[in-house]
Amino acid sequence: MAEEEQAAKRRKALARLDSQAFQQKSVYADTNGVPRSGTPGRVLHIGLADGEIANRIVVVGHHSRAELLSGFLQPENGNGIFKLASDRGFLTYTGMFGGQRLSVVSIGMGLSMMDFFAREARAVVKGNMAAVRLGTCGCLQDWVKVGNVSVASQGSALVQRNYSHFDGSAADVKPYLLTELCLPDDELNAAVVGALRDAMGADKVVEGVNITADSFYSSQGRADPAFNDENSDLVSEVLAKYPNAITMEMETFQLFHLARSCLPKGSFRAAAAVVNVANRPTGDVVGEEALRTAESVGGKALLQALCNLQL
Amino acid sequence: MAEEEQAAKRRKALARLDSQAFQQKSVYADTNGVPRSGTPGRVLHIGLADGEIANRIVVVGHHSRAELLSGFLQPENGNGIFKLASDRGFLTYTGMFGGQRLSVVSIGMGLSMMDFFAREARAVVKGNMAAVRLGTCGCLQDWVKVGNVSVASQGSALVQRNYSHFDGSAADVKPYLLTELCLPDDELNAAVVGALRDAMGADKVVEGVNITADSFYSSQGRADPAFNDENSDLVSEVLAKYPNAITMEMETFQLFHLARSCLPKGSFRAAAAVVNVANRPTGDVVGEEALRTAESVGGKALLQALCNLQL
Repeated sequence: MAEEEQAAKRRKALARLDSQAFQQKSVYADTNGVPRSGTPGRVLHIGLADGEIANRIVVVGHHSRAELLSGFLQPENGNGIFKLASDRGFLTYTGMFGGQRLSVVSIGMGLSMMDFFAREARAVVKGNMAAVRLGTCGCLQDWVKVGNVSVASQGSALVQRNYSHFDGSAADVKPYLLTELCLPDDELNAAVVGALRDAMGADKVVEGVNITADSFYSSQGRADPAFNDENSDLVSEVLAKYPNAITMEMETFQLFHLARSCLPKGSFRAAAAVVNVANRPTGDVVGEEALRTAESVGGKALLQALCNLQL
Repeated sequence: MAEEEQAAKRRKALARLDSQAFQQKSVYADTNGVPRSGTPGRVLHIGLADGEIANRIVVVGHHSRAELLSGFLQPENGNGIFKLASDRGFLTYTGMFGGQRLSVVSIGMGLSMMDFFAREARAVVKGNMAAVRLGTCGCLQDWVKVGNVSVASQGSALVQRNYSHFDGSAADVKPYLLTELCLPDDELNAAVVGALRDAMGADKVVEGVNITADSFYSSQGRADPAFNDENSDLVSEVLAKYPNAITMEMETFQLFHLARSCLPKGSFRAAAAVVNVANRPTGDVVGEEALRTAESVGGKALLQALCNLQL
C-alpha cells in the first residue's frame, strides 16, 4: 500500500474513534463487577460461559500438562471433550472421569493468573466447587527428591517483594514480606495424599509447607547480579520461620487464600500438589521423561481424588 | 491399551524415577541463579537465547497485539523476522524498524509475568536496554475517553491485597497496600508522548498517574459478592492519595520498578502507555475496531519513539 493511502486510512480510522456509533459493539459490559462479553456471556480472561467448567477442577500451569491430563477425560453425553483456549492465555478441558464431571485448566504462572482463575471460575460454576493444583516447584530441603510429588498439607505462606523498602519510602522495613500459613481443605487434602500414595507409592509423596513467591527470582532467593534484590538471606529467613517448608513456587497460596475468602464459607475447597523439578540445595534437576511421568501419574491421581470427593 | 498393560507401563515408568542415569537429561541448569536450558542456552520462561531480543522493546499483554505490531517490523540481514513462542506463554518478534533493531514481546498479565520478562530479557540483552509497555486499562476519571491513549508520565503506584489483613494475623492493618510513585525514564517518556501525539493527535493522548494492581478484581475495587474483599472504599482512597490517577492496570509499576532496580543504574530505561478500554465512572467501553486502531497507531508510535532514542 502506498504511503499516502496508508496515511488516509489511518486518518479515517482515527476520526472514527470519536464516533458514538463506533462504541456500540463494545468489548465487554459491567466495568465495575465481573465483566462478561458476547452471547452467551463469557468471563473476560478465562473465556468461559456458565457451566463450561465443572465443579471439580485440576489447575495446572502449562498447556502441555493440561493436554496430557485431558487424555484421562471421557466425552460427556456423546459430545466430544469440551476445549476452550482463551485469548488471554487460559486453556480449559471439561469431560467425565469415573462418573463425575471434571475440568482441567491451564492458567500460566503467578498470583495474578491464579486470581483470574479463581474469580472467573467461581463466576461460571454453580454450587460448591473444589480445585486441586498440580504445579512444579523448586525444593528447599536436600532430602526431597526431584521427580517425587510434594503436597502442601501443612499450608502455604506467601513471600512478596516489599516495594516500599526498595524505593526508600520505608527503608527500615524488610525487603520481603512473609505471611502466616493459609491451609488447604482438610478432607480434599487427605483425598489428594491418599490418591497420590496409591498411584505413585507412599515413598514418592512428601507432605509439608509450601512457600509461594511473587517472583521466580528475587522472592525465591535466586541470585541475579543484574538487579538490586537484597535477597541473600531470604531462604534462610523463610526456613527459620517455617522449618517444614519443602517447596517454593508461585500460585498455591493464592488458591488457598481465595478459597478461604470465598462466600459462603466452605463453598470453594482447595488443595495443592507439585512435582519436584529442582532441588535448590543439591542442584539436582528432574529429567524431561521423569517430569512427564510424575505429571501424568500424579495428575490422574488428583482427578481420582476430586472424583471421590463429596461436594 | 488393556488395563494390565497400562499398569505395567506405569510401574516401569515409576521405577525409572529413582534411576540416576534418568536425571542426565535435566530440564535446566543453575537452580539458584537465572537458569538456562539447551544449546544455545535459553532462559527458562521467555525462552530466548542471547541476542534474540533487541535492546529496544515494546512490551504488550496480548499475543494478537504483538502480532499486529510485528507487521511494522522489517526482516533483518535478509533473514525473516525472528519469532519465538515460549512454552510458558511468552511471544517474541525481533526485526528492524527505521534502521534500528527492535523487538515486540507479549507477556500476558500480572506482576509476575512482567517480572519474568524484565529479568530474563535483561539476561539475554547485551548493553543498555529500553522497554515501553503498550497495554490496556480501565480509567478512573470520567473525562478520560475510551479509545484514547494514556501515558504514565507522572509515574505508577502499586495496589496490593494485604493478605495478612484477611487471615486475621494483622487485622488492624489496611486490607490493601498502596506504594509511592515509581517514575518512568524522563527522556524515553518524552519521546513516547511526542510520538503518540504526532501519530494520534495531541487531543487523544492523556498524561497522568498510573495505578497498577495485583488483581483485576479486588485490588481494582471491582465488586464481586462471591469473595470477601473489603474493597468498597479502595478506589476513592487511591484517588485521595493520587488525584492525578487516570488509569488502572496490572503491569506498569513492575516494569518501572525493575528498570529502576537494574544495575548498573540507568542501564534499563522504561516508559508505559495504555489504550483506554473501559471508563469505570461512566461505564463506557471501547469498541473492537477502535481498540485495534489505537493499538496499531499507538504501537507504531512507540516503535518510533524507541527507534529515535539514544541508548
